[in-house]
Amino acid sequence: ARIVTLPGDGVGPEVTAAAVAVLQAVAAHFDHEFAFEEHLIGGCAIDATGSPLPDASLKACQQADAVLLGAVGGPKWSDPQAPVRPEQGLLALRAALGVYANLRPLNVHPALAALSPLKEDKLRHVDVLFVRELTGGAYFGAKTRTPDTATDECKYTVAEVERVTRRAFELARERRRHVTSVDKANVLETSRLWRSTVQRIAAEYPDVKLEHQLVDSMAMLLLTQPGYYDVVVTENLFGDILTDEAAAIAGSLGLLPSASLGEGSRGLYEPIHGSAPDIAGKGVANPTGAILSAAMLLRHSLGLEDEAAHVEAAVAQVLEHGPHTRDIGGHAGTTDIRHAV
Amino acid sequence: ARIVTLPGDGVGPEVTAAAVAVLQAVAAHFDHEFAFEEHLIGGCAIDATGSPLPDASLKACQQADAVLLGAVGGPKWSDPQAPVRPEQGLLALRAALGVYANLRPLNVHPALAALSPLKEDKLRHVDVLFVRELTGGAYFGAKTRTPDTATDECKYTVAEVERVTRRAFELARERRRHVTSVDKANVLETSRLWRSTVQRIAAEYPDVKLEHQLVDSMAMLLLTQPGYYDVVVTENLFGDILTDEAAAIAGSLGLLPSASLGEGSRGLYEPIHGSAPDIAGKGVANPTGAILSAAMLLRHSLGLEDEAAHVEAAVAQVLEHGPHTRDIGGHAGTTDIRHAV
Ligand SMILES: CC(C)[C@H](C(=O)O)[C@@H](O)C(=O)O
Ligand SMILES: CC(C)[C@H](C(=O)O)[C@@H](O)C(=O)O
Repeated sequence: ARIVTLPGDGVGPEVTAAAVAVLQAVAAHFDHEFAFEEHLIGGCAIDATGSPLPDASLKACQQADAVLLGAVGGPKWSDPQAPVRPEQGLLALRAALGVYANLRPLNVHPALAALSPLKEDKLRHVDVLFVRELTGGAYFGAKTRTPDTATDECKYTVAEVERVTRRAFELARERRRHVTSVDKANVLETSRLWRSTVQRIAAEYPDVKLEHQLVDSMAMLLLTQPGYYDVVVTENLFGDILTDEAAAIAGSLGLLPSASLGEGSRGLYEPIHGSAPDIAGKGVANPTGAILSAAMLLRHSLGLEDEAAHVEAAVAQVLEHGPHTRDIGGHAGTTDIRHAV
Repeated sequence: ARIVTLPGDGVGPEVTAAAVAVLQAVAAHFDHEFAFEEHLIGGCAIDATGSPLPDASLKACQQADAVLLGAVGGPKWSDPQAPVRPEQGLLALRAALGVYANLRPLNVHPALAALSPLKEDKLRHVDVLFVRELTGGAYFGAKTRTPDTATDECKYTVAEVERVTRRAFELARERRRHVTSVDKANVLETSRLWRSTVQRIAAEYPDVKLEHQLVDSMAMLLLTQPGYYDVVVTENLFGDILTDEAAAIAGSLGLLPSASLGEGSRGLYEPIHGSAPDIAGKGVANPTGAILSAAMLLRHSLGLEDEAAHVEAAVAQVLEHGPHTRDIGGHAGTTDIRHAV
């Protein structure tokens, strides 16, 4: 299998190296061949080529079986008014690969419950899979700007909502058969289209329970009853906000993985944390989110379910018995975790 | 002073009656004259007149010194695809009154810390004032719909951002002189206009510290360090989501008030909870949010700071010593709370 790595900026290179080491161990142990090819994205790509997603990087990704990304951005490129910005590389890549379904699982490991801002009784049975629409909405709509006014258009087509909804229902069938669709249908036209489309697709899955929730209520319910939810499907911007809220529940951003999938098996995998410039290069970043992203890569792009489960079990062992990085109350470095896993 | 009440739907009438009783007690005790005039809004207005904001209601509000609203909506009118919906009345009223700054304070009363989903150590020193832009953004932008596509336009002008920003900075001067502006400037054009405008206005307030935060990060930081924030200013939709997340932190939605202000002193006051159809008419709704909204009315529209503080102190007493309604672990009814206050 051909795997392109895009380490990116800040802690990206450290955590990506750890995830690659784990994938290499999997290859050795299970007798697979993984070829890795490293490319530029984000701030380092701007510095080297002027573009946050150089052609060479994009082409390599389009020819790979899977892409493993670290993180993009940093103080050096943080002016949101600058014409060229690291995040543009990430957004362009998502669009070019057509990875419209962003899977972000939220699990709270019992050994880490003390780190969560939530009371421990709220954390029991928390096992949520967010399915965030990733290539539509206000992220990719028309924008205008005059000295006096700015606009962003949020646009969704029925087809865009259908495909991500189907993905959510398919995933729910492998889980607890419960989908919560989040929108703002009492205010937004795109949300009314979203809701009626989800409603119609749900009829194809009579064995899965569907509920609708308004995004403001959901922001609340995620705190008051996180254990209630199974699969949560929502549009791009709401998904961005809700999954970061969910990440806070997990106790550390460093723990959570994500997978972005399109029509084929090619996928884009990245930990949900950012480039964390404050700790970059110190060897203390938690590589767990990146390693769990590699496990998702094994599962969703390479069809290696056993291998994925193996990596996840190893990560769970380490979370339970240590070593732990600083963000979760330990002293270990990035490479200690990688060796332990 | 002329106060229009819009009890609305569900628990709206019960909690509004409690707040009116408290205002009447204030009038008697401090020797003021308050004239109350009740009008229709929301679902009950649709049933009676076909419109969620009948002309008579709007005219009365425009001539009043302040408007006290209960809640709108309910299962009977809950189809988001229906052409006429209760929330339209609320949105039309906000726009017609020009109340662009929605103030939503978040305080966690120590006696109620056990009810919050957050660990008690997170709740120390939580005292946040959200200032949500209320008459712009995607709520009021152009919408389109075809069988296949829907769009919502989010639009902001510099003037809209300036006025709400100034309000936030003025309020910060009476508090801890710290403003956090929330946007999604790495993706949205409206957020880039928002950020540069806030930045410019901030220069007029060198004594107030300004920080910018992305909305996804803010959804996380609100859980990990809620005690850090003072005034948080943001656009309409982000404010909707973040203030509901904040409400969950308070332990019960029934506790929190809001004030919506425009250029003059006229204001619109409403508890942040909804119409709660499941408990409507049972006399168990928590009127605290409505009563605290009445206190904000005394302060912001009538300039009666002492009276407002008096009501707030009485509410704090009741929260500490009871009686408590069911949502916060007690058995008392709506009228018990009103008498206690
Ligand atoms: C970096 C940014 C553009 C990105 C997003 O908003 O999608 C990030 O927050 C994420 O969630 O992956
Ligand atoms: C009822 C609804 C339209 C409203 C809003 O979204 O503004 C409500 O959620 C609120 O926060 O006051």
